[in-house]
Amino acid sequence: MIQALAASEGIAIGKAFVLPNWEWEMPEQKIDVGDLALEFDRLYEGVNRSKTEIHQMKSELDEAVGIQEASIFDAHLAILDDPVFMNEIQGIIQRQYKAAEVAVKEAIDHFVTMFDLLDDDYMKERALDIKDVGNRLLKHLLGVPEIALPTDTQPFILVVRELTPSQLIHLKPDVVLGIVTMVGSPSSHSAIMARAFGIPLVMGVEAKLEAPIATGDLLIMDGGAGLLHVMPDAETVAQYTELRKRHLVAREQLQSLAQVPAVTPDGESLILAANISSVKELDAALASGAEGVGLFRTEFLYMDRTSFPTEEEQYEVYRAAAEKLNGQPLIVRTLDIGGDKQLDYYEMPEEDNPFLGYRAIRFSLDRKDLFKIQLRAILRAAAHGDVQIMYPLIASLTEVREANALLTEAERELAAEGVPYRGGLPTGVMIEVPAAVLIADLLAAEVSFFSIGTNDLVQFTLAVDRMNEQISHLYEPFHPAIIRMLRTVTEAAGRYGIPVSVCGELAGDVRAMPIWLGLGVHELSLSAQAILPVKDAMLRTPAQQSRQLFQELFQLPTALEITERLERFHAETALAEGKVKPGV
Amino acid sequence: MIQALAASEGIAIGKAFVLPNWEWEMPEQKIDVGDLALEFDRLYEGVNRSKTEIHQMKSELDEAVGIQEASIFDAHLAILDDPVFMNEIQGIIQRQYKAAEVAVKEAIDHFVTMFDLLDDDYMKERALDIKDVGNRLLKHLLGVPEIALPTDTQPFILVVRELTPSQLIHLKPDVVLGIVTMVGSPSSHSAIMARAFGIPLVMGVEAKLEAPIATGDLLIMDGGAGLLHVMPDAETVAQYTELRKRHLVAREQLQSLAQVPAVTPDGESLILAANISSVKELDAALASGAEGVGLFRTEFLYMDRTSFPTEEEQYEVYRAAAEKLNGQPLIVRTLDIGGDKQLDYYEMPEEDNPFLGYRAIRFSLDRKDLFKIQLRAILRAAAHGDVQIMYPLIASLTEVREANALLTEAERELAAEGVPYRGGLPTGVMIEVPAAVLIADLLAAEVSFFSIGTNDLVQFTLAVDRMNEQISHLYEPFHPAIIRMLRTVTEAAGRYGIPVSVCGELAGDVRAMPIWLGLGVHELSLSAQAILPVKDAMLRTPAQQSRQLFQELFQLPTALEITERLERFHAETALAEGKVKPGV
Repeated sequence: MIQALAASEGIAIGKAFVLPNWEWEMPEQKIDVGDLALEFDRLYEGVNRSKTEIHQMKSELDEAVGIQEASIFDAHLAILDDPVFMNEIQGIIQRQYKAAEVAVKEAIDHFVTMFDLLDDDYMKERALDIKDVGNRLLKHLLGVPEIALPTDTQPFILVVRELTPSQLIHLKPDVVLGIVTMVGSPSSHSAIMARAFGIPLVMGVEAKLEAPIATGDLLIMDGGAGLLHVMPDAETVAQYTELRKRHLVAREQLQSLAQVPAVTPDGESLILAANISSVKELDAALASGAEGVGLFRTEFLYMDRTSFPTEEEQYEVYRAAAEKLNGQPLIVRTLDIGGDKQLDYYEMPEEDNPFLGYRAIRFSLDRKDLFKIQLRAILRAAAHGDVQIMYPLIASLTEVREANALLTEAERELAAEGVPYRGGLPTGVMIEVPAAVLIADLLAAEVSFFSIGTNDLVQFTLAVDRMNEQISHLYEPFHPAIIRMLRTVTEAAGRYGIPVSVCGELAGDVRAMPIWLGLGVHELSLSAQAILPVKDAMLRTPAQQSRQLFQELFQLPTALEITERLERFHAETALAEGKVKPGV
Repeated sequence: MIQALAASEGIAIGKAFVLPNWEWEMPEQKIDVGDLALEFDRLYEGVNRSKTEIHQMKSELDEAVGIQEASIFDAHLAILDDPVFMNEIQGIIQRQYKAAEVAVKEAIDHFVTMFDLLDDDYMKERALDIKDVGNRLLKHLLGVPEIALPTDTQPFILVVRELTPSQLIHLKPDVVLGIVTMVGSPSSHSAIMARAFGIPLVMGVEAKLEAPIATGDLLIMDGGAGLLHVMPDAETVAQYTELRKRHLVAREQLQSLAQVPAVTPDGESLILAANISSVKELDAALASGAEGVGLFRTEFLYMDRTSFPTEEEQYEVYRAAAEKLNGQPLIVRTLDIGGDKQLDYYEMPEEDNPFLGYRAIRFSLDRKDLFKIQLRAILRAAAHGDVQIMYPLIASLTEVREANALLTEAERELAAEGVPYRGGLPTGVMIEVPAAVLIADLLAAEVSFFSIGTNDLVQFTLAVDRMNEQISHLYEPFHPAIIRMLRTVTEAAGRYGIPVSVCGELAGDVRAMPIWLGLGVHELSLSAQAILPVKDAMLRTPAQQSRQLFQELFQLPTALEITERLERFHAETALAEGKVKPGV
């Protein structure tokens, strides 16, 4: 058994298919001086074909899993538009009289070597992007087909050295049971896509393997645990076959909960709303029984484009979401760009610490011209449903007041222009900066609701970037500092009678359910996939006992003790209801 | 009058000397194939001479202003050791048969263009380093002298396009009154050096100039305000001459306070200790009347080297500091590496958000082998004075317990080996992560003292990287969230009877004095330059009124209101004592 990196959950049992590396046959002779122009033409044609293909993959991916994942390919398009990369290729052709494909190959090797030298995870990921897009370009220049996977065999577990997004997008999930990679990181583009497609993925097994895996070897993989068994014995196969079956049954049981009301065994309720990035994602959320949208991430409206979206374009999207919700609330978060989210068409400053940088409300208040366009679009859409506004990354009262002043100005403009809109919308703030927790009482007096963004709040409070592998073990949402902060927020909100929602990833952690019930939060806002598991946990968790438990948790001095106590409670309530946690 | 960037404070009045750009005369003919080896030899010799020269500048700088500033030249040495840079040069010689100086020039141009293309402040700074070190290399290859400044003229204000550390180090402060640059940033290496040397510096005037400055033009500059007057009228000259005189008088008055006890007008005292990075810096601190060292930044012991310092080397340094302090306390902060502080000889992972990364106690607890060496050295030095230990970046009880367990282990080892040491040292923690504030009561029960690191605490609490120009206006130490946190910390410490020190830059802000007195902190730990201005403020600030003021501040809802209230109080106490703030 090999313990490697868990990259996408799910259990798979099947034979290995080992993908050979791409091999290129390069022309050896130099080109004639007279053919230079021809060679440049070939290069440009290859680039254009590659771009068309990438655009097509991007829209397929958008269709399949949404715009957020599809934006992965923007990095590839950017490389083909990068003057440094293209100049390097052109220079090799022109100065060394080499064929376009040879120049491309040398340029790829040059940049990949350079980026690898830097020994930086981000740069390694860029190197993989360059390899991926470079191979696509080579494929067009050499006229060779994509490496095809067998389609006439039994379903198999794909084994590759490293996985590129281009490879992933053409996999057929009915043939590929799971994927194992030699190298790579769970935070890579490919891993994000595997999770979006629901394909089990274990990464980075190379260092742990005693012998190479061969096509036909029997494998068992558990993507959630990062485990790989090579040629397991019959007993292990039987054990995992059973485990896999229970997984699937549990998944079906969950689906049956979609229309069941979200109520605790002792009759208390908690709204389970959805986090969405596009109108399309709303369908999956509603199918899982979402009671409204607690977080509409509008940045993805800004991301798949070549210029800022117009007021009209935004209005149409917000309106479509509002109408689809049929009277249920739609909380629109204003643009949350910056940090790790960039726009192709608007250059943001490079920052040493982007998480502590020019982001979200800071960008909006700096670019009030753009911010007002968004606010106008939201106000107009509000005429078609229960639309509310939420500001991200608020750290001071001043920011709330500035944003609200602009909102009032936008209302006045629309009124003066005679454009239909609805004013006086509830406006709330994300609580995700530690300062916002410390001044929660001051904020509660001026806004209509709070939504706790646990991801950033935990990161800032513990000073831990959770994407940083070296220290990600220190990212502890159940840290006593966080427990105390959560209570500070709900107490302040309670004093001013405003509701509190939780929209970070912690809301989707079923172990946290007694915390939310104990604190008396009003709403959890969840990704579509998390709604049913969380509802399942809620149906089994008594609110009364949760409140007692919270008092206990509040006294515990370390994250470890709090986590252990929560897990014990979780196991007990699962047993009390005669249910077993799926997959354990 | 031109408003540009304030880079190093001080007022200067004098004539301009405009430094011409470096111009190189390059050999035109290609080299012979037979001379390739010779050309490589010339290159290597140039590189070696450059290195020797840089090492020499570095030690001069260390001598003059200390090791922290001297480490600026490490970036230059790294470039000469960088395989990517050197391969580029060698490739041009070998493939294109160009002379070494031509190859160096082309390589510099290539990298500078590339880095400039990236439009990233960090990369621009790297480009300037490459230019600086490249020019040094060219100088040796071409055998031309450094561009010399006139030494036989009246003192002048130097005007340069951009300023490199190499240029700065050879300036004579008695000839150069101040420096004005066309482009550049106050966070650049050159600006750091100008501040260390006390040379007034205004940067980035190019965009604001109506006509170029000529040698001989009369200039007035105010480096603290970023102001430049070109050919001012007689009235302005008279006004600034007076201002400059008052500056100098105030500086002398301050010096006379060195041996005056630090006591408020109503007789309360507060220890004013020093922040130091080396034993050498301790002299300046003691000359300013420092009552002990509140923060010994040991990372600089690790930085000017090619390998980790041994136990013996560290012991000698800590012991020397302890002995020099003659019984006054020496608080040694354990290694605070990572973030923006790197070691030449130990590769740290590249991080997307280094401030939220693998740093300080996280590094030490991950590399317990290295940590124990430091703890042993501290324990041994403790036999020679009042040595105390402080852990940086503490975010949980678990970290404190792990560190203390290692300390106990180190004591046991020393005892077993019969090596002289003193055990049972007071151990304290930096309060600089928001989580540490939230669990200050839990921490206070287990440690001997707190030291508040305001720089990081404000950065994390407000989620603002203060080095990021785009948002540095949001770095507000007088934010109500910070005021509340400070009280949480002093209350928790008070409950457990442990003292609180403040060692961040905010401790050196004279406006903050009533906050410290109002909170009842025990100690401020300051850079040598800040001790006397802070003592001056303390001598004029009544503790009783400060406590009342703090109650008021605690109720104010925005940073702006708090800042204004503090400034009003400051002006009032200055008037009440019949004193005027220097320079206003």
